[in-house]
Amino acid sequence: MLHVPHTPIGALLARRRPGYGLEQPFYTSQEIFDLDVEAIFGRYWIFVGVEADVPEPGDCMVVDVGTTSVLIVRDDDGNVGALHNVCRHRGARIVHEYKGTVGNLVCRYHQWTYGLDGKLLFAEHMAPDFDTTCHGLKRVHLKSLEGLLFICLSENPPGDFDVMAAAMLPYLVPHDLRNTKVAYEEDLIEEGNWKITMENNRECYHCSVNHPELTVPLFAYGFGFSPEKLDEAGREQAHRYECLLDDSHTAWEAEGFPSRTLEHLDDMDTGYRTQRLPLDGDGEAHTLDTKRACKKLLGNITNPKLGALHFWTQPNSWHHFMADHAVTFSVLPLTPDRTLLRTKWLVHKDAVEGVDYDVENLKAVWSATNRQDGELVGFQQSGVKSPAYEPGPYSPYTEGLVDAFANWYVSRLAAQIDG
Amino acid sequence: MLHVPHTPIGALLARRRPGYGLEQPFYTSQEIFDLDVEAIFGRYWIFVGVEADVPEPGDCMVVDVGTTSVLIVRDDDGNVGALHNVCRHRGARIVHEYKGTVGNLVCRYHQWTYGLDGKLLFAEHMAPDFDTTCHGLKRVHLKSLEGLLFICLSENPPGDFDVMAAAMLPYLVPHDLRNTKVAYEEDLIEEGNWKITMENNRECYHCSVNHPELTVPLFAYGFGFSPEKLDEAGREQAHRYECLLDDSHTAWEAEGFPSRTLEHLDDMDTGYRTQRLPLDGDGEAHTLDTKRACKKLLGNITNPKLGALHFWTQPNSWHHFMADHAVTFSVLPLTPDRTLLRTKWLVHKDAVEGVDYDVENLKAVWSATNRQDGELVGFQQSGVKSPAYEPGPYSPYTEGLVDAFANWYVSRLAAQIDG
Amino acid sequence: MLHVPHTPIGALLARRRPGYGLEQPFYTSQEIFDLDVEAIFGRYWIFVGVEADVPEPGDCMVVDVGTTSVLIVRDDDGNVGALHNVCRHRGARIVHEYKGTVGNLVCRYHQWTYGLDGKLLFAEHMAPDFDTTCHGLKRVHLKSLEGLLFICLSENPPGDFDVMAAAMLPYLVPHDLRNTKVAYEEDLIEEGNWKITMENNRECYHCSVNHPELTVPLFAYGFGFSPEKLDEAGREQAHRYECLLDDSHTAWEAEGFPSRTLEHLDDMDTGYRTQRLPLDGDGEAHTLDTKRACKKLLGNITNPKLGALHFWTQPNSWHHFMADHAVTFSVLPLTPDRTLLRTKWLVHKDAVEGVDYDVENLKAVWSATNRQDGELVGFQQSGVKSPAYEPGPYSPYTEGLVDAFANWYVSRLAAQIDG
Repeated sequence: MLHVPHTPIGALLARRRPGYGLEQPFYTSQEIFDLDVEAIFGRYWIFVGVEADVPEPGDCMVVDVGTTSVLIVRDDDGNVGALHNVCRHRGARIVHEYKGTVGNLVCRYHQWTYGLDGKLLFAEHMAPDFDTTCHGLKRVHLKSLEGLLFICLSENPPGDFDVMAAAMLPYLVPHDLRNTKVAYEEDLIEEGNWKITMENNRECYHCSVNHPELTVPLFAYGFGFSPEKLDEAGREQAHRYECLLDDSHTAWEAEGFPSRTLEHLDDMDTGYRTQRLPLDGDGEAHTLDTKRACKKLLGNITNPKLGALHFWTQPNSWHHFMADHAVTFSVLPLTPDRTLLRTKWLVHKDAVEGVDYDVENLKAVWSATNRQDGELVGFQQSGVKSPAYEPGPYSPYTEGLVDAFANWYVSRLAAQIDG
Repeated sequence: MLHVPHTPIGALLARRRPGYGLEQPFYTSQEIFDLDVEAIFGRYWIFVGVEADVPEPGDCMVVDVGTTSVLIVRDDDGNVGALHNVCRHRGARIVHEYKGTVGNLVCRYHQWTYGLDGKLLFAEHMAPDFDTTCHGLKRVHLKSLEGLLFICLSENPPGDFDVMAAAMLPYLVPHDLRNTKVAYEEDLIEEGNWKITMENNRECYHCSVNHPELTVPLFAYGFGFSPEKLDEAGREQAHRYECLLDDSHTAWEAEGFPSRTLEHLDDMDTGYRTQRLPLDGDGEAHTLDTKRACKKLLGNITNPKLGALHFWTQPNSWHHFMADHAVTFSVLPLTPDRTLLRTKWLVHKDAVEGVDYDVENLKAVWSATNRQDGELVGFQQSGVKSPAYEPGPYSPYTEGLVDAFANWYVSRLAAQIDG
Repeated sequence: MLHVPHTPIGALLARRRPGYGLEQPFYTSQEIFDLDVEAIFGRYWIFVGVEADVPEPGDCMVVDVGTTSVLIVRDDDGNVGALHNVCRHRGARIVHEYKGTVGNLVCRYHQWTYGLDGKLLFAEHMAPDFDTTCHGLKRVHLKSLEGLLFICLSENPPGDFDVMAAAMLPYLVPHDLRNTKVAYEEDLIEEGNWKITMENNRECYHCSVNHPELTVPLFAYGFGFSPEKLDEAGREQAHRYECLLDDSHTAWEAEGFPSRTLEHLDDMDTGYRTQRLPLDGDGEAHTLDTKRACKKLLGNITNPKLGALHFWTQPNSWHHFMADHAVTFSVLPLTPDRTLLRTKWLVHKDAVEGVDYDVENLKAVWSATNRQDGELVGFQQSGVKSPAYEPGPYSPYTEGLVDAFANWYVSRLAAQIDG
């Protein structure tokens, strides 16, 4: 009989082999992509931006997640909220530009006018019994984790966000993200499924050959290696790195900078992982000279050599917080084979461009690294679409977090299908 | 369970709430789009152009409706007919350019040659028993309503076209469309479903803010308003408009120009509506100075102040006939989210460009208005694709014709599904 | 009831009327296109290129058939093989450029390194029990017919390739394709289904009007005609052509150049047809002046007037071998309505450009003919998508090979569905 019989998604999820990549349909099928948008991006907490994106009352930002358009708005009391960007009259999109400042939210079509909290303030020509209180903009759940903005499109968001937030709080507080500004941001469309973008982020097995800029500040031994294959020189370098890591953690924690690993990538709905890692060279930042990119340090930080605090979240973000700046990454699915990677570089809100920092220097490492990763993502997408593709084994030493991502994805999607 | 269960189209139609917009799938689903093309554009009378498009024998015009390509041809006797633009041999498209003049219809591929009436005249190399009489171009039903060309792709067109035509005849005759020429025409691709384009046409609630050019000739009170919200000045203006309308109708009808409203937008298969409305300012035409755009008036008209006779048809056209010129609009679906709006400006066939009329002035109002409407259509399409969209209520004062369009659409599609 | 009920593919195949074109879904349906890629291009022998594409050890060429990417590689022993271009680790595409030269095959992502035979030579960081012998690049069946490269993506290729090869061998040997080089190649994307491209190739009914260049070397009577319609002059010309054909075959076969027709277009899985036809004018080649395009003749050929040996294969190629050069055509499906036509012009490997041949002259006839055919293919695709299209009758005199193509396609697809 012709045609591989169309395996139901539940069966594909059930037969996924731990330690191996996902099967082809997870990267190429429109049906599974739609399910990802609905059941992953529509049910879990998604990282979409930072409070510094909307610094003043009336500032708003549009974030599109699948076909859902969300308005992030700072209201007159300074609170950040999220609303559906869809007029309650004929359904027109209300705000069109990515970022702007408004008094009220006015639909261009028939001038229905909403407050920054979404309340319908004005609608002309409606029937006498028309009830404005039933026609406000629909609200979206939003949480700010020390300035990192997460939304959940579901009515019933996962409850363990607060568990994650409580654990992450002491790590993040010293970097004082609420007092930062977006010094630069960049959108890159990668030619691959969003999960390929995520998997690419979850290992550095590919770094040594593909990322000449990133491997300047990163230690080669920081992201796993096969112990069997090391020669004596290698073993010594690996050992030296282990000592450095331990010493750094002890010193930083004594200074009030939590640094040790928290690992919950696949045992929580709001999966995450964090650790602070020392940097090579001058040890200050992800820059080409490994020195801080911004003279003015974040918050009250005085020690520029804090390495980089990494924070990974499921299903769609990662972040690097250093003494002088932070970089956040948000992954947004576009089509089965196209993904938006949105990167923002944050510095102290009072830092002055040209005086305290130079944008080219600030973004040099990650801008180059993103481009390189985008190319690799395209290579993988191009290969997995072949009928000859079959999932290969992950390295137990360097691809454990890729496996954790796949585990999280498979179990959460399965839960939604059963649930 | 995941996924909104796919609601059958019949159930979607059955649960449509009168006075409210349509649900999302009617604007975004490929399945419903295909159904629209087949069961609406394939079964009802569709406006596709004017006799002035093919003024001379041998003139032909290609109109594509969905994947169907139709040839509109004027034969040697001066009759206009419609043929399928598909060779009966290997299926090649026969005519490729939008408009042209031909002796016979010759397929480029193997030179099968058809007369202007579709008869196969010549086919080389065929078997001795090949019967040319069975291999003529297939015919399409066509009706000319005083020069307005409607086609029906079905074998059994709705019979009430003639009822509509008889009622419209006295309104149209004075404008003498058969003796016009196409002074200008313009295709605009709007980024929205064809029904969003139609709904946009069926109300002027959006006009005051969005159409600075169109609101020069149009009276603000001509397309509905909420009586409750008027202040004293407003009430007086509205009253003055009512008197003007009544006086104008009386005067025009006395001159032989039927003007009063005929309203059959949702109670006939061949749904339509007409009325003649006075214009602001000099009251002559849809121009920026409200004066006629063409010195030579249509037919035998001598009074340039006839306002505008509006004629709306379901599912795909509207028209404005003035003393000096006419504008016709044909809506053709391209994809679920792209629609072709084809606009033609007609003047007396003997009018001379540069002497009697200036094209820029002639098209200024509607060319600008179309562009503005196209943007609004894109806004609505962009919003209704969100899962957060839900149909909102129509204004009973300004959106009654939108509701009538939705009623017509829903009942006719339901009839085709049952029938 | 709405919608033409979706006829199952098996029923569409069963009701196909011999001597008539295929029904619309075979040219437009995504489902049938996917089936074509899987069950025709995935099961039968596909022509993809020539040995001269990879003349030296380490040379490789990428050929994409549907979503399958295949590497054609010449190994260090000079043997040409085919491998799936997909890394066994994370599935990345390994080779990206169309043609190149490599030492080993190294995946850019994590440097998994394979030999030219596909064996995995090196993979860093893998688990101690990782077995490299199970993770070589997957092999693809490949056969070289005197330098013409055919692949089969199935595990069980049709066994009758060797029957075809044995029959074709004496025809091809004198042209010595293994000692040619690719003097020029050209990719053309045609806007039609791959079967429309094939059908276009299988008749010359369309040549006289559409191919002014090709009809210089081709005899008008060489590809069929209706005998009933000939006048006396025509009958005499046709008779003269018959005599020329017979005399040419006798003379060429006496010289050691098999020329008579072998006809197996629809009675073998590996369907093919061959014949050597005389050329008009100087009778040497498919050139605008009908003289050879390359001074240095192929192999040991000394007689430049060998006409053209034609070789057609199902489902995707045709070839013209002349005394001085050869032209090969490979058809690769892209989407239901887009097809890649890849054309290569081969000359003796020692011929010197600018001395022995001029590329513009060499490619003039077929480059122009391909463009013209591409336009005709687009015309047919544009027409058959209309609901008004119905398959027309083929000419028994000029379209027999089109019918044979359709017969082969229908019976082979039916076999796969049943099998």
